[in-house]
Order: sequence, then structure tokens, then C-alpha cells
Amino acid sequence: MPHREHSDIIFGNRGMSLEEEINQSNAYYLQKEIAVIHKKPVPIQIVQVSYPKRSAAVIKEAYFKQSSTTDYNGVYKGYYLDFEAKETKNKKSFPLSNFHEHQIKHMKACTRQGGICFTIIKFSVTQQLFLLPAATLFNYWDNQAKGRKSIEKKVIASFGYAINYHVQPLIPYLTYVDKLINK
Amino acid sequence: MPHREHSDIIFGNRGMSLEEEINQSNAYYLQKEIAVIHKKPVPIQIVQVSYPKRSAAVIKEAYFKQSSTTDYNGVYKGYYLDFEAKETKNKKSFPLSNFHEHQIKHMKACTRQGGICFTIIKFSVTQQLFLLPAATLFNYWDNQAKGRKSIEKKVIASFGYAINYHVQPLIPYLTYVDKLINK
Repeated sequence: MPHREHSDIIFGNRGMSLEEEINQSNAYYLQKEIAVIHKKPVPIQIVQVSYPKRSAAVIKEAYFKQSSTTDYNGVYKGYYLDFEAKETKNKKSFPLSNFHEHQIKHMKACTRQGGICFTIIKFSVTQQLFLLPAATLFNYWDNQAKGRKSIEKKVIASFGYAINYHVQPLIPYLTYVDKLINK
Repeated sequence: MPHREHSDIIFGNRGMSLEEEINQSNAYYLQKEIAVIHKKPVPIQIVQVSYPKRSAAVIKEAYFKQSSTTDYNGVYKGYYLDFEAKETKNKKSFPLSNFHEHQIKHMKACTRQGGICFTIIKFSVTQQLFLLPAATLFNYWDNQAKGRKSIEKKVIASFGYAINYHVQPLIPYLTYVDKLINK
């Protein structure tokens, strides 16, 4: 087995998507009874299913539907958490086009009910991770018409929290959710 | 338009599945900004997708996967809610075989995190609805080995709450969630 370099830990697993990294982190949180957070399945419109004898039903025709919610939700210390995870190849800013109107609407509705909403943003070129509270996202989203279609990385770093890759969990985002709770 | 009889209201829409009735109730709660509760999509393992020119991607081969959670979750008054909806044709008791071990495990994990977990049970023959707190379900589930493989309707009525069909929402289950919160 090759020597594992320190940089492997700091910069995460370069081959993994952000989704896989978060799923792995959630599996750790679940196993340690720290939180119950799951990724929602992709919504599918099923058109045709065949039922072969003595084997599992096979979906023969189906289409991807647009989700009416965000990708992740669950419960942590009695709080409802709801978030999206987004990656960008941009270096200096995060384009708002990564979001759909219905996701913002959903997070606003959850916030009104006392849920804790945020986004985990990954700048894939530099492997930098941030947790951005929904309030900042809403502010930029609602002011798009004024011209700015993205959030600068320095704004994200200022209103959000930089997350360093860790070992267990790989992305220790609940540490920063604690900061949102205590605000 | 035919005269709408009183019995239509009391007994609900006989043609609708419990899932449709709950989805309709959740749509009402969402629209009125009372709660944000969604049914999770059915998890699918996608094997083959074709991308025809100038039209939507078509899933050509996929299989149903077992969900690792319950069907419904969301946020209400700052509380995390998590529940299953189950229908039975039985008249006097609800068979525990309607649940899978992983659903019970999931609800136990959510309960430990301070989430509010329950089941909405419909006796379809008599069109009776109940909200049963997870604690009673856990108790019966954990004692199955002792012989009883179902929960009697009278036990459900005693430890849970009978829900009468209403107009808006069709199934006013949050009224009974309030009782769980105030316990």
C-alpha cells in the first residue's frame, strides 16, 4: 500500500464528487448517531414497467422530473436541516444559475418554518469548501435584477464558513451548522 | 353539478389512495405556509439512459430500490416531522408486516435526534384514519418475538388519535401533531 500523503487528507479525495463526499459524511454522522441526514432520490416519472417471471420488475421507460425541493434534509439536535450542495469550476465567484427558482422558494418556506437552510459550495479547481447560510443566498438571488448574477468568493468567505476537509467525517459541516444554531 | 352529500366529506374521496390524500393535504399546508412536508421520490437504480436528439433523456432500464428512510418528512413550527402512511384492508388490526426493519430503525434514529415520528394508518374498509405515535409502534415492533404480529385497532385508537376527513386539508393530521408536541 502506498504511503498516504498529508495532502490527501487536506484536499479530500480528488476523484470523488461533492455529492459522494457529503453522502459519506452523512453515513458517518448517522452511524455515530450525530444526525440523520439523507440525500433525496432523483424524482422519476415512470411510464412503462415490465414484470418478468421470477425476477425483479424492470422500468422500461421513464423520464427525469425536476425536483420541487433541495437535495438534502434531515434532523440534527432537534433542528430541521435543509440544504443543497453545489460545485463550480469558477475560481472567483459562484454563479446563481446553479440554482432554480423552486429550490430558493423551498428554502425560504423551510426557513419560515424554523428550519436551518444553507448551501455547501465547492470551488473544484482549488478544492475549497464553504457553508453559506441561506440568508446570504436569498439576498443575492432577490437582487439579481440589479445586475450581479454571481456571489464573489470573498463574500462567501465573509458571510459563510470555510470548511476544511477532515477524515471522519470527510466534510465536517455540522460544526458550522452549530454556529448557525448559536447565532 | 350534483349536490355534494355530507357523506362525501366525512368519508373522504373513496377513489383516492391514502398517498394522494396526504399529498393533497401537504399541498394545502404548503400553500397556506403552515408546514413544508414532501413525499420523497421512490429510489430507482438507473442502468441505461438514452439521449435522443432534440428531446428529453429517456431511462431505458432501471430497477426499484428499497428506501432507507420513510416516505414523508419536513418541517413544522421548527420541528422535524418524519412519518409513514399505511393502508390496510384488515378490519380489526394493523399488521406489523406493513413495515420494514429499516423504516423502524430510521424513525428510531430520528426520534433520538428530537424529531417527531409517527404513522398515519388507514383502515380502508371502514375509511378510518389514525395518527399513531412512533413510540407505540416501536413497542409493538420490538415485542413481535413474543407473538403479536399486529396492533389491534382499539390499541391504535387508545394510544393514537382518530383523524376525521376534512375539506381543507383533506387529512388535518397536523392538528394531532400539535398534541404530540404539547405532550
